[in-house]
Amino acid sequence: MTVIADGKEIAEKIYKNLKERVEKLKRKPVLSVVITEDNEAGKIYVRNKEHACEKIGIISQTTHFPANISESEILSKIEELNADVNTDAILIQLPLPSHIDSKKILNSISARKDADGFHYSNAGKMFTGQIPYSVACTPKGIIKLLDEYQINLKGLNTVILGRSDIVGKPVAQLLLQRDATVTICHSKTKNIDFYTKNADLIVVAIGKPKFLKADMIKDNAIIIDVGISKVNGKICGDVDFENVYSKASLITPVPGGIGPLTVAMLMQNTVELAEHNLITDDW
Amino acid sequence: MTVIADGKEIAEKIYKNLKERVEKLKRKPVLSVVITEDNEAGKIYVRNKEHACEKIGIISQTTHFPANISESEILSKIEELNADVNTDAILIQLPLPSHIDSKKILNSISARKDADGFHYSNAGKMFTGQIPYSVACTPKGIIKLLDEYQINLKGLNTVILGRSDIVGKPVAQLLLQRDATVTICHSKTKNIDFYTKNADLIVVAIGKPKFLKADMIKDNAIIIDVGISKVNGKICGDVDFENVYSKASLITPVPGGIGPLTVAMLMQNTVELAEHNLITDDW
Repeated sequence: MTVIADGKEIAEKIYKNLKERVEKLKRKPVLSVVITEDNEAGKIYVRNKEHACEKIGIISQTTHFPANISESEILSKIEELNADVNTDAILIQLPLPSHIDSKKILNSISARKDADGFHYSNAGKMFTGQIPYSVACTPKGIIKLLDEYQINLKGLNTVILGRSDIVGKPVAQLLLQRDATVTICHSKTKNIDFYTKNADLIVVAIGKPKFLKADMIKDNAIIIDVGISKVNGKICGDVDFENVYSKASLITPVPGGIGPLTVAMLMQNTVELAEHNLITDDW
Repeated sequence: MTVIADGKEIAEKIYKNLKERVEKLKRKPVLSVVITEDNEAGKIYVRNKEHACEKIGIISQTTHFPANISESEILSKIEELNADVNTDAILIQLPLPSHIDSKKILNSISARKDADGFHYSNAGKMFTGQIPYSVACTPKGIIKLLDEYQINLKGLNTVILGRSDIVGKPVAQLLLQRDATVTICHSKTKNIDFYTKNADLIVVAIGKPKFLKADMIKDNAIIIDVGISKVNGKICGDVDFENVYSKASLITPVPGGIGPLTVAMLMQNTVELAEHNLITDDW
């Protein structure tokens, strides 16, 4: 029997735990979000995030900039938020307009307030086996889900499709830390079926609807689908779910799989940054 | 015909180029090395590095500490070197005595003077596709060698044995940047032959003499041997060279393969750090 992983249920468990942690703080954590007006998909995500914040007692503050905002104006805003002791976490909703250097913006956030874990110094600490202030939400959510279903990653042949800084590369590091054997495939990979057919676990994060077909996987593989696309008005992932489903041992649906865990991990990052800001302030 | 890659010859070409770059600077670059007296293998490496420095006009300054030196004394020395405008590059010769936290020491070096490219912020910049002050020498040397022999890495099935912060993990990033498909294997990998037998290119960096045997590779594979061990008084690598040799299309010998390129890349890092310190000072 194939297990369809329930990301929503796991997210609810995480929220319950985070709510309790928030109640112990001397004030509510503050997550500050920056978004530009042209980012329509981003607005939906931001509303989801605001909803999650409400659930657990995080104050969400969103700054909306016009699409023609200058890089220096965004940088000034971030500088202000970095300096504000009452802002615990900062999130820049990507994508930014094309005239803005996104990496420059992301790396101008104080690493101690980096809600998304995209700052190069946090990535570098994870990469070199140190403790970062935060870890990228989607990769962290993937590991959380695998842990909840008690998947032993040690020695597993894991194959990642996609090499982004946000999913593919950091999840490779987290899987390596758990002693998995890790292969990273991407658009230039030749004979991609060879890798996927031999994989015990596949993470697909390439943004190509229904890319992973049933004949590309082996029986009882674990399938983690990170894709979110809209096809004929319907949300679907990077996996051909209807056909892959019965062949897999565990599969994450889209929606309701990794998506809710990504938001939950953003909440967890925010609470962790607030705890350090308000309690320890020494790491 | 198998090509035995000549690391020494490539290193000499690099030295010639670096010597010319050094002559254009207003003063000689200064590389400051810190080593503890118990590090016998390290002393040999340090002498090799001093010899390379002489060749191209880098001033090498070595601080020898007793094995019972305290962490705070090493940190004070690094603080002094970080502040000294006439020190361009700093190298901590590993391993340090076991009572010292090596990662803490390595990360106390200013990222702008990080000769070895081990600082988490330099690793993080490489990992996130930005320009670090320096890149780890052995991985950089491996790519340099592959470039010299005009190996097109795009889409190649590359397999790395070993997941260290110093070789395995950073070389995986550099190979990905060149569009290779990358698998990282390690001590917990099951059925390692499966990966190596299908690989177009194998990097072995595990410190196990003659680990990679002829029956573990396919015909015409490219074999990069990073291991250096002493067996019965003879230096040997992680590859069973005598038997693997005729099956490979290109192989790096030990000694004379990647070793000289690691030293050459340390020289290149030092010159690059000095150029930025003395010329641009703005990156």
